[in-house]
Amino acid sequence: MSQEISDRGCDFKSTNERATLRYVITKGAETRAAILDEAVLVVSRVGFSDLTIGQLAEQTQMSKSGLFAHFKSKEQLQLDTLEHARRRFVDLVVRPALSAERGEPRVRTLFEGWLEWASNSLDGGCIFVAASAELDDRPGELRDALVRSETDWLELLATVARAAVAEGHFSSDLDAEQFAFQVHGVMLAYHHARRLLRDEAAGMRARTAFDAVLVAARGT
Amino acid sequence: MSQEISDRGCDFKSTNERATLRYVITKGAETRAAILDEAVLVVSRVGFSDLTIGQLAEQTQMSKSGLFAHFKSKEQLQLDTLEHARRRFVDLVVRPALSAERGEPRVRTLFEGWLEWASNSLDGGCIFVAASAELDDRPGELRDALVRSETDWLELLATVARAAVAEGHFSSDLDAEQFAFQVHGVMLAYHHARRLLRDEAAGMRARTAFDAVLVAARGT
Repeated sequence: MSQEISDRGCDFKSTNERATLRYVITKGAETRAAILDEAVLVVSRVGFSDLTIGQLAEQTQMSKSGLFAHFKSKEQLQLDTLEHARRRFVDLVVRPALSAERGEPRVRTLFEGWLEWASNSLDGGCIFVAASAELDDRPGELRDALVRSETDWLELLATVARAAVAEGHFSSDLDAEQFAFQVHGVMLAYHHARRLLRDEAAGMRARTAFDAVLVAARGT
Repeated sequence: MSQEISDRGCDFKSTNERATLRYVITKGAETRAAILDEAVLVVSRVGFSDLTIGQLAEQTQMSKSGLFAHFKSKEQLQLDTLEHARRRFVDLVVRPALSAERGEPRVRTLFEGWLEWASNSLDGGCIFVAASAELDDRPGELRDALVRSETDWLELLATVARAAVAEGHFSSDLDAEQFAFQVHGVMLAYHHARRLLRDEAAGMRARTAFDAVLVAARGT
């Protein structure tokens, strides 16, 4: 009986401990996500090289030692920030497009989602565009991670284009990688016109350019 | 007579002084140009925020005080570096295109010149592409100067397209600004594919995309 009580007591304690642990983990994950949200914003504005634990501590009003507990080093913070941005991008741009109808509608949804992402999701524009220019000459893990992420993105564009061929929306002789390259060019020109030149016509220009790529993709 | 000699003496001295002054100015200008060549290389690799007088002193093996005599401040060095890059761009890309035949040949020469510039002129790729991503969120004189330079470039692309309309090479209802936007997109996609992704097919992709823009510009 004392054993039983003790066991039950033990169970009770361990359930309690598990709940506490779960709370700590959830709380920790939430804090971590909140820090990384802030880090993504910082990078979108000033680039990866100016993202430091010290600066992020100021921004989040956390202690440097608290941040070190989460990220260990500047390099790890940079990698985690890129990964966090990639996940946000999947949530905000990729997932909604995968709910759209296969074929050209999905291609369009992806494009419109990207415009929205580049215009309104982050103060400093698309973190991947900024990072591409910043990191192209900086070999290392961060560059490798960015190359993987950018390659995935171009492959996704090519894949949705191939599905549009299969649906009969695009011409059967479409070069899907070439299509992805051209759509990506339109996105980069949009980012430049809107972010640097503050060109009010950037959205209209981008949609017109995208439509021209679609017309060619449909063939005659 | 003594007046005459004195005058001649004076003339002789002043000619000598002028020659010395010219030598000093030429020498000074040459040194300045050599420093700015180096500065443009540094910026193409690491961006404007990492271009400092201290770092440039190391790179050029000059003294910091010697460099300060040329540029006064980091801000002035940045502005002069951008202006120097702009002049090199005019020499290497714009001027040769203006010798090409008016119309579509000139548009093509400009495009090929740009590919060459972005691929081989600087270790770190096109300084304007890198600066556009770096400076879009950094208000100030340097950003303003870049916006002027980028606007000039897009206007030049539109102007050569308009000349191609006048020559009957492009359709009379061509929107020249839209054409410039799309060609610029192809250039940015090329830079990304070549510099970040090290994609061997980048040049082929860019030329195919450019040809598609030309086909549309010619109309039917």
